[in-house]
Amino acid sequence: MKIFSVSIHIIMKIIESLMDETTLPHPLRGIIPPMVTPLLDRDTLDIQGLERLIERILAGGVHGLFILGTTGEGPGLSFRLRHELIERTCTQVAGRVPVLVGISDTAYAESLNIAQKAKHAGAQAVVLAPPYYYPAGQPELLEYLEHLVSELTLPLFLYNMPSHTKLEFDPETILKATDIPGIIGLKDSSANMFYFNRVKYLLQDKPEFSLLIGPEELLGETVLLGAHGGISGGANLFPKLYVDLYNAAVAHDIKRVHILHDKVMLMRATIYSVGKYNSSLLKGLKCALSYLNICNDFMAEPFHRFREAERKIIIQHLDKFKEYIEAE
Amino acid sequence: MKIFSVSIHIIMKIIESLMDETTLPHPLRGIIPPMVTPLLDRDTLDIQGLERLIERILAGGVHGLFILGTTGEGPGLSFRLRHELIERTCTQVAGRVPVLVGISDTAYAESLNIAQKAKHAGAQAVVLAPPYYYPAGQPELLEYLEHLVSELTLPLFLYNMPSHTKLEFDPETILKATDIPGIIGLKDSSANMFYFNRVKYLLQDKPEFSLLIGPEELLGETVLLGAHGGISGGANLFPKLYVDLYNAAVAHDIKRVHILHDKVMLMRATIYSVGKYNSSLLKGLKCALSYLNICNDFMAEPFHRFREAERKIIIQHLDKFKEYIEAE
Amino acid sequence: MKIFSVSIHIIMKIIESLMDETTLPHPLRGIIPPMVTPLLDRDTLDIQGLERLIERILAGGVHGLFILGTTGEGPGLSFRLRHELIERTCTQVAGRVPVLVGISDTAYAESLNIAQKAKHAGAQAVVLAPPYYYPAGQPELLEYLEHLVSELTLPLFLYNMPSHTKLEFDPETILKATDIPGIIGLKDSSANMFYFNRVKYLLQDKPEFSLLIGPEELLGETVLLGAHGGISGGANLFPKLYVDLYNAAVAHDIKRVHILHDKVMLMRATIYSVGKYNSSLLKGLKCALSYLNICNDFMAEPFHRFREAERKIIIQHLDKFKEYIEAE
Amino acid sequence: MKIFSVSIHIIMKIIESLMDETTLPHPLRGIIPPMVTPLLDRDTLDIQGLERLIERILAGGVHGLFILGTTGEGPGLSFRLRHELIERTCTQVAGRVPVLVGISDTAYAESLNIAQKAKHAGAQAVVLAPPYYYPAGQPELLEYLEHLVSELTLPLFLYNMPSHTKLEFDPETILKATDIPGIIGLKDSSANMFYFNRVKYLLQDKPEFSLLIGPEELLGETVLLGAHGGISGGANLFPKLYVDLYNAAVAHDIKRVHILHDKVMLMRATIYSVGKYNSSLLKGLKCALSYLNICNDFMAEPFHRFREAERKIIIQHLDKFKEYIEAE
Repeated sequence: MKIFSVSIHIIMKIIESLMDETTLPHPLRGIIPPMVTPLLDRDTLDIQGLERLIERILAGGVHGLFILGTTGEGPGLSFRLRHELIERTCTQVAGRVPVLVGISDTAYAESLNIAQKAKHAGAQAVVLAPPYYYPAGQPELLEYLEHLVSELTLPLFLYNMPSHTKLEFDPETILKATDIPGIIGLKDSSANMFYFNRVKYLLQDKPEFSLLIGPEELLGETVLLGAHGGISGGANLFPKLYVDLYNAAVAHDIKRVHILHDKVMLMRATIYSVGKYNSSLLKGLKCALSYLNICNDFMAEPFHRFREAERKIIIQHLDKFKEYIEAE
Repeated sequence: MKIFSVSIHIIMKIIESLMDETTLPHPLRGIIPPMVTPLLDRDTLDIQGLERLIERILAGGVHGLFILGTTGEGPGLSFRLRHELIERTCTQVAGRVPVLVGISDTAYAESLNIAQKAKHAGAQAVVLAPPYYYPAGQPELLEYLEHLVSELTLPLFLYNMPSHTKLEFDPETILKATDIPGIIGLKDSSANMFYFNRVKYLLQDKPEFSLLIGPEELLGETVLLGAHGGISGGANLFPKLYVDLYNAAVAHDIKRVHILHDKVMLMRATIYSVGKYNSSLLKGLKCALSYLNICNDFMAEPFHRFREAERKIIIQHLDKFKEYIEAE
Repeated sequence: MKIFSVSIHIIMKIIESLMDETTLPHPLRGIIPPMVTPLLDRDTLDIQGLERLIERILAGGVHGLFILGTTGEGPGLSFRLRHELIERTCTQVAGRVPVLVGISDTAYAESLNIAQKAKHAGAQAVVLAPPYYYPAGQPELLEYLEHLVSELTLPLFLYNMPSHTKLEFDPETILKATDIPGIIGLKDSSANMFYFNRVKYLLQDKPEFSLLIGPEELLGETVLLGAHGGISGGANLFPKLYVDLYNAAVAHDIKRVHILHDKVMLMRATIYSVGKYNSSLLKGLKCALSYLNICNDFMAEPFHRFREAERKIIIQHLDKFKEYIEAE
Repeated sequence: MKIFSVSIHIIMKIIESLMDETTLPHPLRGIIPPMVTPLLDRDTLDIQGLERLIERILAGGVHGLFILGTTGEGPGLSFRLRHELIERTCTQVAGRVPVLVGISDTAYAESLNIAQKAKHAGAQAVVLAPPYYYPAGQPELLEYLEHLVSELTLPLFLYNMPSHTKLEFDPETILKATDIPGIIGLKDSSANMFYFNRVKYLLQDKPEFSLLIGPEELLGETVLLGAHGGISGGANLFPKLYVDLYNAAVAHDIKRVHILHDKVMLMRATIYSVGKYNSSLLKGLKCALSYLNICNDFMAEPFHRFREAERKIIIQHLDKFKEYIEAE
């Protein structure tokens, strides 16, 4: 049974989009940091911070840049600001690495709007989590993907993030989605290795489909088992650590994986564990970047930057561990 | 300890907003249906359907109208269409009952935008669920409310909807929120009577704060126990049934409550239970309204209207039960 | 389609069991307190405390007594002690009210053992929650009931308690279970009024099947809507309060329901809310009973009695509210 | 601050227990299959099946045997049968590998009873999941462990199994438990690699504490990252596959890990995925063992053996894949 049909017109659009100046590797591999969004206030970008942050990340040798994801506070930003961020990021990156743009939204039309801005600004791909308000069924989710992809002009990564979206892409839905031209990869942030192993097993005949892991604690083991890379939040702060861990895993250098994995675990045990809320990773990252004079730590509602007490702890951690973490 | 401060300026704005032509009763009581949004396609209102629907609902004797809620597919609509709906609804209602407008969004700035449109169009209040992507803590949620309300020019109802937002307003957060001028009520759609009873108990000294129940299966018992009314989805279809049930409960006419409650349970067992997804209530309502020639049953992504098989079942239910449900 | 067959032999056993000296009313109505189990240490009953507790509860005018439930710490007690408790309780009650005995266990054979002791000791019914370790499907659960009931010699109440058992009896499973001779009622402790209303609606043609509510905060509203009574934990402490609330609801005396319901809410806000764990209700009850010299407050593992700090708060609550709660 | 005190008496008992004839390695390493329990009917062991099953498993080169766990249907068996199984298993194994005995129960006294039988029968260790009915807090859980271990005469493995027990041992609780003499390891069946990585990170200074993984899909990656072995259900059927995978991971032979891991994933995709319930792994294993004439496939309530339709599918899978899975 055929699930959907794709017109020549759409195939042409996909082909065209894949011929863009910065060609996306198939599959996309490596470390693609989910960039935090530097803000001065609720609706103002920290433009100089943004430039410094991009340069710091690129200097670490990363293989791409993902903006407007969860770490980037995408769903909390006005559409005006999202558009500005897309343009400034693409201009600053200037084709050195592929730029991936988050377009997740509860409204189909708004996801499409962002995707058009991304294409126009010169991004290389878009990234979409399931619409995160209504409890759609998996067949509905697949139809939604088919409709949306037929209107997109950039290739699409799926983004599995059930802790924030409630709804997840079932492994079988992922498998069906690989047959939709234009869907080229998955970022799995479920932190569920049952799920990841299942998806990987189902996709063994799809070597061009990119499997990227979200949670950085799982980067080492998933790349060892065959994942193509990671969307590692910590790479905003210490990009080289994650690139090195990725390279060690690709090289099957288990001893080095152990050493670098322990540094990632130290990040979790220190920078990401201050304060009592689940948002501690985001706040810790922005606070640390601010202390290092990279960018402002203002956060979009409903969050606020760490106050003095938490900031002090972050600073202590950084002063104590920064050199160890960054060491070769 | 003072949790927040409010400037004279803000108080004046609140007072001003409360002096609008259509004064909101304190507390707001009765049946305020969460109106479905009639659509012709993904980004086009069914304008004539909208007019017919509003007239049908108002003819049932309801006490207000709530647009852009969960039943109204609010989070799935483009902002352009939301603005159009607000204007057309306010024009059509023309002050006959208060209009409440849903402004829930993951982006603070976008919630504020809709609220301004609502004020400008002549709505009487706005309704806000917690931002539904990030896992905010309760103190963060309270700060978010304080910030937002200080910029609003209409009074605000809180909307507790954990099945869709993950995050809920804790009863203690509700209690604190009652001290923020401009927050005047709660719509509780948790379907959790522990929660509702707890909130009601905490608010026993706040007689002007409106406590409204979402799920219509709980309308009878909550009004008997002292709730002020309900935001009953079924009132799109049979408004008088819910108004009658509300009145019977207010009058402590238990026998009549039993009879009308059983009709509501029949709605659940028939119109709301077709198809296998959690969205069956929305789809059943739109399908039934379409069969009755009230409005189109097109649905926003990620849903689609009932196809032939489900529609047939809805029609059978309607043909069999409509007269019984609408009977005196 | 026939789901199961019952031999003449089994039907005779059921009939025989229903002819016992203390006949169970059909449906069983009223307040049946889930008795706490007074302990001196891990495997020793507080025998005198048990006698005082039973007399206090019966003096409140209750309609039955339920032992070895969740409030009775049943699953935490050795089988030896459970057997002793069954015998002593039946002897002390001496037929004044029906005694219901919890037989929930993960092992079928052990549930059956307790049921036989209950029958032998003169109890009137047994009470069973789903086996609470493995994730059985609903058809498996129904088969399990059919097998078990065919070997029981006392009528059975189902006990829905998903917070502790994970697994629940689906409303449709309850409906099917009403066709198994010997299953005569449901205690619903889900605190989910959607569930309760759904079950009640499905069972409208089963007037002899007893629907009893667990959480006491929901006693008033459920009896108003037609439930037959409640298994109210607070009735260990203040049995008359719950009997009065039940009677007021049966009499449709809404004003009196409001007054008594508020006293129950006060119990929740004081006695049941000390300490930070979900077990605060159990600990609060035992601590209060100990302060009133009814029985020892020793608790079975993994719990321990309130220590000095929490005990002081319980005492303050009791000293302040006891007379108000017990007042006419 | 000292959390607990241990008397000389208890220390002596622990030392004595550690001096048993079959000394447990520290840490225990390798594959310790969670043995299924062969049954003829609800309360009768399949004695010959048990002997054949033990011999088949031991022939695969496993490093221990774990009975009365989740795969062994422990919580569903009568205590009489559990005792019989312990004795027969210890007799049959006769010291060739360590025997670990599950003692999880909701009643402290019953857990202690089983542990005494295990000691008496000659087992080498006991295994305990949190008591799985009441929602204990972590400090309560730790006290419970301290109490229980002080009465045990065999070393104890913790068993983390939140899907079945609701309650889990927090990583910090595990860390504290490593200071209780007699607690020597953890079997983690959470399938949560965040949890596992966190525990491993916290225990980096406890090289003698054994970290064993439950879900076999995670065996390869966790041993690569430093886990000591696995409690792999599939080793009932194909013990050598799991021993080989363990050895490949210990040897850092990633290519071989990939090949063997894919065979494990094939087990999940075939033998473990028949029927629609979460119990499909248990049923699939027993059905396959029965088809191979190892033992009877009778299952304890609330489950039943696969019926003809499911059995056919299992047989097809076995006929197709058995040789591939068992191949070198």
